[in-house]
Parts: sequence; structure tokens; C-alpha cells
Amino acid sequence: MNAAANVTAKVIDGRAFADRLGTRIAVAARDFAARAGRAPGLAVVLVGTDPASEVYVRSKGRMARKLGMESFEHVLPETASQDQLMALVARLNADAAVDGILVQLPLPKGLDSLAVIEAIDPAKDVDGLHPINAGYLASGLPGLVSCTPYGCLMLLRDSLGSLAGLDAIVVGRSILVGKPMAQLLLAENCTVTMAHSRTQDLPGKIGRADIVVAAVGAPEMIRGDWIKLGATVIDVGTSRVEQGGKMRLVGDVDFAGASLRARAITPVPGGVGPMTIMTLMHNTLIAAHRRAGMPVPNLS
Amino acid sequence: MNAAANVTAKVIDGRAFADRLGTRIAVAARDFAARAGRAPGLAVVLVGTDPASEVYVRSKGRMARKLGMESFEHVLPETASQDQLMALVARLNADAAVDGILVQLPLPKGLDSLAVIEAIDPAKDVDGLHPINAGYLASGLPGLVSCTPYGCLMLLRDSLGSLAGLDAIVVGRSILVGKPMAQLLLAENCTVTMAHSRTQDLPGKIGRADIVVAAVGAPEMIRGDWIKLGATVIDVGTSRVEQGGKMRLVGDVDFAGASLRARAITPVPGGVGPMTIMTLMHNTLIAAHRRAGMPVPNLS
Repeated sequence: MNAAANVTAKVIDGRAFADRLGTRIAVAARDFAARAGRAPGLAVVLVGTDPASEVYVRSKGRMARKLGMESFEHVLPETASQDQLMALVARLNADAAVDGILVQLPLPKGLDSLAVIEAIDPAKDVDGLHPINAGYLASGLPGLVSCTPYGCLMLLRDSLGSLAGLDAIVVGRSILVGKPMAQLLLAENCTVTMAHSRTQDLPGKIGRADIVVAAVGAPEMIRGDWIKLGATVIDVGTSRVEQGGKMRLVGDVDFAGASLRARAITPVPGGVGPMTIMTLMHNTLIAAHRRAGMPVPNLS
Repeated sequence: MNAAANVTAKVIDGRAFADRLGTRIAVAARDFAARAGRAPGLAVVLVGTDPASEVYVRSKGRMARKLGMESFEHVLPETASQDQLMALVARLNADAAVDGILVQLPLPKGLDSLAVIEAIDPAKDVDGLHPINAGYLASGLPGLVSCTPYGCLMLLRDSLGSLAGLDAIVVGRSILVGKPMAQLLLAENCTVTMAHSRTQDLPGKIGRADIVVAAVGAPEMIRGDWIKLGATVIDVGTSRVEQGGKMRLVGDVDFAGASLRARAITPVPGGVGPMTIMTLMHNTLIAAHRRAGMPVPNLS
């Protein structure tokens, strides 16, 4: 944790970590299939024709099949009613071959996302979005954890070992990332500060943190010289910015500047991003084992 | 917020605040009864003969009746089985006259508290202990909030007005107090630090906080000279200590020392304690209105 002087940070390779995790998931999925007589099953629901959502849904299905899981893809028309969507979720809840249900967000206007999420069987809620899964996390009970923060935690554990006693700051308080991230870090015995748009003296607070998780979605808003020497930086933000006439992906953190002070840092792209789909696969594997009454294999 | 020099803090009178809140609850309960044709109803379940629990249960029933609510007290023998307890909870869930269900903890050994809590209809969970209520709180959705932190928040709002942008530290991370307290302060736009037994440099962190909520249960472990000048201190801890041959109640904070630096501070006893039973009454009133489909009156 002690950087005596300016050094260049280790770049945390999320893609390589995700690949290694994927290999372990594939082995565990094959083992599950041998014992349960069926592969773990992931159902992905898409409503409408949003091109980005179509890409995400396709890549999730492809990854599931690649790792030896069964993939069920359900596409409803843009004009689908709330009742149709709820009926589909009810069918997937009842389907014994389905371990995980993911409804691709955002839904077309007029559909009630929360009602859909609350209709998903919490034991199949592999996106970790059901309020009871948020409650299990907050209460220290076993549930399913939102994929992105879970992936960030795996990278932090891999990079640091024990996180106990470290000062962590989470910038951004979304339900999907910031809030569950804070709970996960607290469970690791970090002292956790939750910062956001109303926070006073953000540079000072970041400057005292051993771990910085940035999940705001504001391009390079965290300056490199704010980072404490020797800190570990996890950058969840992904923004598309124009630079010299070309579009480029950047994170919430000034990567070049932070690299001169941090001990380790995730790049954008290639850091947190590749972990998210893999933790979805991991959650599906966990859900499959729990539903089958089998002990969940420890893949970390 | 600025104390130029040592001053004696304002003592936050939780008993007087709770009395005023009780008056408003009683008016709202009478109004509810006139419109709904029945009073709000609170069911309290006691298993066994623990003397402290008996006192708590009696005082809750008495307070409910005093405020114009109906009180249902159910006492099961020490030897009650899990099935008996679950059957009672199921009956109370189904009873239209019951708006709130509180199972007095701790339960006798051998009974599964979590199973009982998870069996309570979340809409009647006036103790705010059901994981889905923790999840609603974490997700910013309407639910029922654990009584003690909710009472602390009311005292803070009354003392400070807007909490937005203030730096708050919550010491202690219990499911009952510390964790929901942090969520409530975050929802008020505080920057929130969650500290606990593994926290490094607690004095330094407390010294930077505008709001300190202490919920550890360690007598006077927070020294007065750690407190930032002008901070507001809420002391949830209540410990019984011997002093000069007499038993005395003390909080987690050195009250005398902190009074020389804080802007306002809750005493022990007479601070947070009296609020807890009153927020239970408030939660019962909220549950009654929601269950009847009536708008919840704003009593703050």
C-alpha cells in the first residue's frame, strides 16, 4: 500500500481476470450438469428493438452457451403490454430449467420496470435488482448481488487480498452500482464513505481513501492529483467523448494522471466492463446450485 | 454550524420531541378511526417470560392505547414451538384489524428469529426488520423503516433543518441501527461514512464529521475531544455502568466532554430512547393508512 514516490500504477486487466473466471465457471457448469442432469439455464428477456440492448442480450446468450449453460432468449415486440411481460416472467419463474432471469433494461416507455423486477422470483434474480436482494445484501444474508459491483469486488480482492480496515470511498449512489458496492465493501470490513453530487470537498475525501470506486458516469471528473499515493482505483464509469475528431471511451477518472499516484487502477475499456457479464454468469451458476440444493462452489 | 470557541451544546430533548410527536399521532389516529371505522391496530408478540421484554411489551401496548390505537398483546409460553409462532404470525397477517406486527426480540433459544421476521407481512412490519424493508430503504422505495434510526433522523432534522451536503459518520453497523441510519442520511444528501470496530483512526474521522451517530454500545468510547467544533451528536448507545457504587446509564459518547465542542447533543437517557417507541407508533399509523389506501399524513 505504500508508494514512496510517483510510480506507474499496475493496470488491472479485467478482461484477463474475466477470462480466467469464465474458465472456472465452465468447469463448474459442466460439473453441475453432470450431477443435476441439466445445464444451468439463463433466460434473457428483451422488449423492443433498441440496438444497444439487442447487442447486450445477444452477447449474454452467447457467453452463457460458451460456458456450457442453456440460454433462453425471449423477445417481445415494442408494443408488448405490461400484462404480457408479467405473464412471461411468471412462466419463467415456474420453469424448472430456468435458474436466472434477466430483463434487459431500460424497458420501452409505458412499461413499469419496478413491477417487472419485483415479479421475478428473487432466487432467479441474477441481476440482483429485486429489492429483497438489496435487503439481503444490507442485512448480511445470502442473496444475489448486482453484477457490476460484485465484479469490482472480485478485482479488488484479487489486487489487494484482504480489504479489512482500509478506507474506501464510493463516488455515486445508484441502486445498480454505488449502493450495493458500499455494502459489499462494508462486509469486507472497509470503512466506507458514500459520496455523490452533493458531497463537499470531494478531492479531500478521495485523497484520504485507500480504495476509490468511481461510478458516476462523468468523463474524467476525478482528477489524477486527487488520488492518494498508493491507492487502488476502480473506474466503473464509461463515457463516449470526442477527442481530435474521434470517439473514445473514457472513465470517471483521469487515467493517465491517476496512474502516476495509484498502486493499481482499472482501465476503460478493459477493466470493470468485461467483469459484468462474467459475474452474471457466476450469479446464474450460484442460483442453479442453490435451486438444486447443492453447495455453491467457491470460484474465487 | 460554526462554533467559534468552546460553548456548551444544546441538549436535544428526545422526550419532549417524542411527546409532541405523540400528540400529533393521537390526532391522526383519531382522524383515521373516524374515516376508516376502526382505530389503527398494533399487535405485539412476546414469547416467554424475560422480564425486560415483558416491560417493553407492556409499555408498547400502553402507549398504543394512550394514542388511540388498538393494542393486541399475544403471549406464548417459553416452550412455544416455531410452528406455533409461525401460525400466530400468519393469523395476524390475515387479521384486517392488525396494521402492525412486532415480535419482541430476542426470542427464546431454539426459535428461528429470521424465519419469523420473514413471515411477517412486510406491509405490517412496523419494526422495519423484514429484509424487503431493508431493500426498499436501500433502493429509495417506500417501506417501513427501523424505529431507532428513524427517530434519530427526526431529531437531526428538527435540530439542523436540511442535512444536505453535511458530512455524517455512523459508528456501528448493526442491521437494526447503523446500516439503516446510513441509508437514511444518504437519502438526506449527507456524505456518509460507515465506521466500525475495524476502522482505522476513528478519532480523525469523527473529527471531520458535522453529524456523529454513535450506535456501538460501548460506554463513552467516543471521547469529547474527538468531536468537531459545532458538530451535532446523536448517541444511540445505552450502557449500564457502576459509578461510585451506583448504577448509571451512559451512552457511547463522553457527554460532558462532547458538550464543550458540539453544537447539539442527545443525552442518555432522555435522548434517542424515548423516540424509539414513538416511531413505532408512527410506523403503525403509516401502515394503517397505506393498508386502507389513504394518504399518509405528514407529521413532521
